[in-house]
Amino acid sequence: MLYSTYFGAQMKTAIQPTRTENYPEWYLQVIQAADLAETAPVRGCMVIKPYGYAIWEAMKKHLDTQIKASGHENMYCPMFIPLAFLEKEAEHVAGFAKECAVVTHSKLVQNDEGKLVPSGKLDEPLVVRPTSETMIGALFAKWIQSYRDLPLLTNQWANIVRWEMRTRLFLRTTEFLWQEGHTAHASADEAKDHTIRMLNMYIVFSEDVLAIPVISGNKSENERFPGAVNTYTLEALMQDNKALQLGTSHFLGQNFAKGSNITYQDEHGKSQYVYTTSWGVTTRMIGALIMSHADDDGLIVPPRVAPYHLVIIPLFNKKSDPDKLIAYCKMIQKSLHATSYHGESLRVHVDTRTCSGGEKNWSWVKKGVPIRVEIGARELAEESATFTLRTKAYRDRQTTSLQDFIQTVIPQLDLVQQTLLQRAKDRLDRAIVLCKSADEVAQVFSKGSGAACIYWHEDAEVEQMLAERYKASIRCLLDTSINGWELSAPATFTPSMQGQLAFIAKAY
Amino acid sequence: MLYSTYFGAQMKTAIQPTRTENYPEWYLQVIQAADLAETAPVRGCMVIKPYGYAIWEAMKKHLDTQIKASGHENMYCPMFIPLAFLEKEAEHVAGFAKECAVVTHSKLVQNDEGKLVPSGKLDEPLVVRPTSETMIGALFAKWIQSYRDLPLLTNQWANIVRWEMRTRLFLRTTEFLWQEGHTAHASADEAKDHTIRMLNMYIVFSEDVLAIPVISGNKSENERFPGAVNTYTLEALMQDNKALQLGTSHFLGQNFAKGSNITYQDEHGKSQYVYTTSWGVTTRMIGALIMSHADDDGLIVPPRVAPYHLVIIPLFNKKSDPDKLIAYCKMIQKSLHATSYHGESLRVHVDTRTCSGGEKNWSWVKKGVPIRVEIGARELAEESATFTLRTKAYRDRQTTSLQDFIQTVIPQLDLVQQTLLQRAKDRLDRAIVLCKSADEVAQVFSKGSGAACIYWHEDAEVEQMLAERYKASIRCLLDTSINGWELSAPATFTPSMQGQLAFIAKAY
Repeated sequence: MLYSTYFGAQMKTAIQPTRTENYPEWYLQVIQAADLAETAPVRGCMVIKPYGYAIWEAMKKHLDTQIKASGHENMYCPMFIPLAFLEKEAEHVAGFAKECAVVTHSKLVQNDEGKLVPSGKLDEPLVVRPTSETMIGALFAKWIQSYRDLPLLTNQWANIVRWEMRTRLFLRTTEFLWQEGHTAHASADEAKDHTIRMLNMYIVFSEDVLAIPVISGNKSENERFPGAVNTYTLEALMQDNKALQLGTSHFLGQNFAKGSNITYQDEHGKSQYVYTTSWGVTTRMIGALIMSHADDDGLIVPPRVAPYHLVIIPLFNKKSDPDKLIAYCKMIQKSLHATSYHGESLRVHVDTRTCSGGEKNWSWVKKGVPIRVEIGARELAEESATFTLRTKAYRDRQTTSLQDFIQTVIPQLDLVQQTLLQRAKDRLDRAIVLCKSADEVAQVFSKGSGAACIYWHEDAEVEQMLAERYKASIRCLLDTSINGWELSAPATFTPSMQGQLAFIAKAY
Repeated sequence: MLYSTYFGAQMKTAIQPTRTENYPEWYLQVIQAADLAETAPVRGCMVIKPYGYAIWEAMKKHLDTQIKASGHENMYCPMFIPLAFLEKEAEHVAGFAKECAVVTHSKLVQNDEGKLVPSGKLDEPLVVRPTSETMIGALFAKWIQSYRDLPLLTNQWANIVRWEMRTRLFLRTTEFLWQEGHTAHASADEAKDHTIRMLNMYIVFSEDVLAIPVISGNKSENERFPGAVNTYTLEALMQDNKALQLGTSHFLGQNFAKGSNITYQDEHGKSQYVYTTSWGVTTRMIGALIMSHADDDGLIVPPRVAPYHLVIIPLFNKKSDPDKLIAYCKMIQKSLHATSYHGESLRVHVDTRTCSGGEKNWSWVKKGVPIRVEIGARELAEESATFTLRTKAYRDRQTTSLQDFIQTVIPQLDLVQQTLLQRAKDRLDRAIVLCKSADEVAQVFSKGSGAACIYWHEDAEVEQMLAERYKASIRCLLDTSINGWELSAPATFTPSMQGQLAFIAKAY
């Protein structure tokens, strides 16, 4: 039996099983306990419930602001893609053909048995977008005429379908939500720079907003986006030491430009192909958030994306007048609402349910609200507030005058945000083993104790061996100029070859 | 030849043909001139281009705030609907079966000729949502147990597919974007009140934000949403005197509750079916915006949803230093950006293109930016600004000191917003004929001069006659308590019967 790190030895953990008992099941139980999402009654899909969707909306808002600030404009393209479009880029179609939803009919009729069956067969089937490069290609080919039209910087928020065989809430579902940026540039260098720029936007977002430190770099040839010249990734390490790809940014070279004939007249009147990029992050980030920060008592939401920054819990008992308690709580809510946190009003909920204080407390612990405020007869009488940070144990709750509490609420939220990031950084530092030999890599994975870094000379046999023997993969090739990581130089995988520093892990 | 009402007799209108010459073609030309959207390279779909999408984002933001303020939570449901779900409500499936995209396969393979063909046939085909009542029904049945779970108030922003045969940009496309609210209530009265409440939210939004006055009421049985007990609508009258349905709000009674078995235990422990509502508005509102406010020189965007509230146009010529002009324009932009308009920073664009002042002016006239600010050598020297409201003629431009301009910019935007609303109201008042007899209705439609109001006694023959003879329909049955319209009582259609006051028009 494991006991709550939060409430202490007298109570069982809120989430059963715990992380050490059964990590995959713990993950699903955290989602259920926080009411984030559920498996939909249609194959491989999920329903994102209000509390989960509110986290997605907060993520969207942050990213959308950044995407617009960096000169991109939002637009919306159709979700249906004609087969002829997919065929324009050979690697691309090979990459997505095995997992796509195909629309073949445009109506339903009742058959003789009264059962609905498809009717109105389409001349050409349509694919529900697994990504939009080919549709964007057709549009860019039309929109771009001259060098004056470049760079063309666009983005869309959309739903995507990939017919995944093994699905898991947030991490891998048939339909998911994402943002996909698509840009066209006159030169390869400009497009490459843009690819890195957007990767960096994601890295900063992940660390500053999601409190998730990442390892980033380019993918091996084997793991590249179908049709890309180079794929950059940001990878986070979950609490079970598996890596999770948080987002990707692709330099597509002229592959899609040639497939879709996207050309422009340069300053000398000569026709040239453009260079394109694409980059995206998905609802998968919510899965990363859970597996980075949640504990055996449930979710912990970083304040920057929290649906509620604070919840105020009136503790009703015989001694207190419930109306007065609620009025006091609402007054606190109003004062907090007037407080600005990163340019927005604090989001504060008052939990007026009549169930016990303990029950209310537990429910918000499981939902991971950064700060819980308890208000009982004493707080009302004293004009004080008792509050607990979700990142500290319950015994560390503090009672202060209401005025002091309201004045210090922002630093307290900052503390929760910083604590989450620091914990995740410490965990990442502990988990990554800078290996000095292939044997040491073998040790890391046979113990399941972490992830490995070692120089790798783009040797496909090593990659295959890692997959077969340890179910591990080269998540990315580190470029310290990109991710700012300082690693004391480890040895190379193949001693005679120099290669690039590789981050190797089992992965989601 | 018609001349620009905006720039006057010396110039042709920006949009060819004009409204009087060819209204449907004028509509498409306005969209093209303002670069709002275009026909997609996939059947019946549209691409919403950045300027059009920015209008949609502004609409979304206003509505989303209202929807949340009235207690609804956003969520996201899968877009695929199993056939078995659709079959649960007989009228519903009959209403949508003829126009839906059916997914039948989950992969593509190359056939012997190297052509991609669908493969991996699904056991049960899936329909791309034409609306989500049946999916929501399955979820509500699971989520609602007790009267304590009611009311359940949800909303989602999503893409929708209806396989329309005749499509037109924004008005009718195979895929479109919308918001769909879904709620469940313990009593019929509460659900009915909620249906009206959301209708009223749309009415206020349409008038206050879109500057489009509407006529609202319930639909005749014939025009009801498939599966609804009652459908309320808000209808706007376009400049060609055709009505356009801007949104609907449905009281669904217990139809979907019974189809999906959505029950709750009441306070006495008895199992009861809930009452549900649904309500939605779509990207069609952009079509309404165009056809309500645009003129022969192009779009006019109401300031409340304008992508740019102002555009600043530096007029480069030999006498002026372009760097100084641009610096002055950017300084104005910065001052304006610090100004708050309905709780947001003013959105201001500086058009630094090197083309002529006339060309720049025309491009922003066509895009319908509420206020254009011209800055030449004189304005720079005087520290002044010359501005023109899109709702006034170009000769009505004013030059004032920069300080005065910045101080009066909000009232000027308010003036544009009010002018648009007043014009649309006046047009609606002029167009609606309060008919005293069936003959008078006939006159209205044979002349094509407007729309008619008359009492109607739910007589299907009259409805059929209107459709056959005039291609007109009963848009809604007026309830003055809903839409606040004051109509001096006109006569009844069928003199012996009292009936309800009906709004009759040709429609999009």
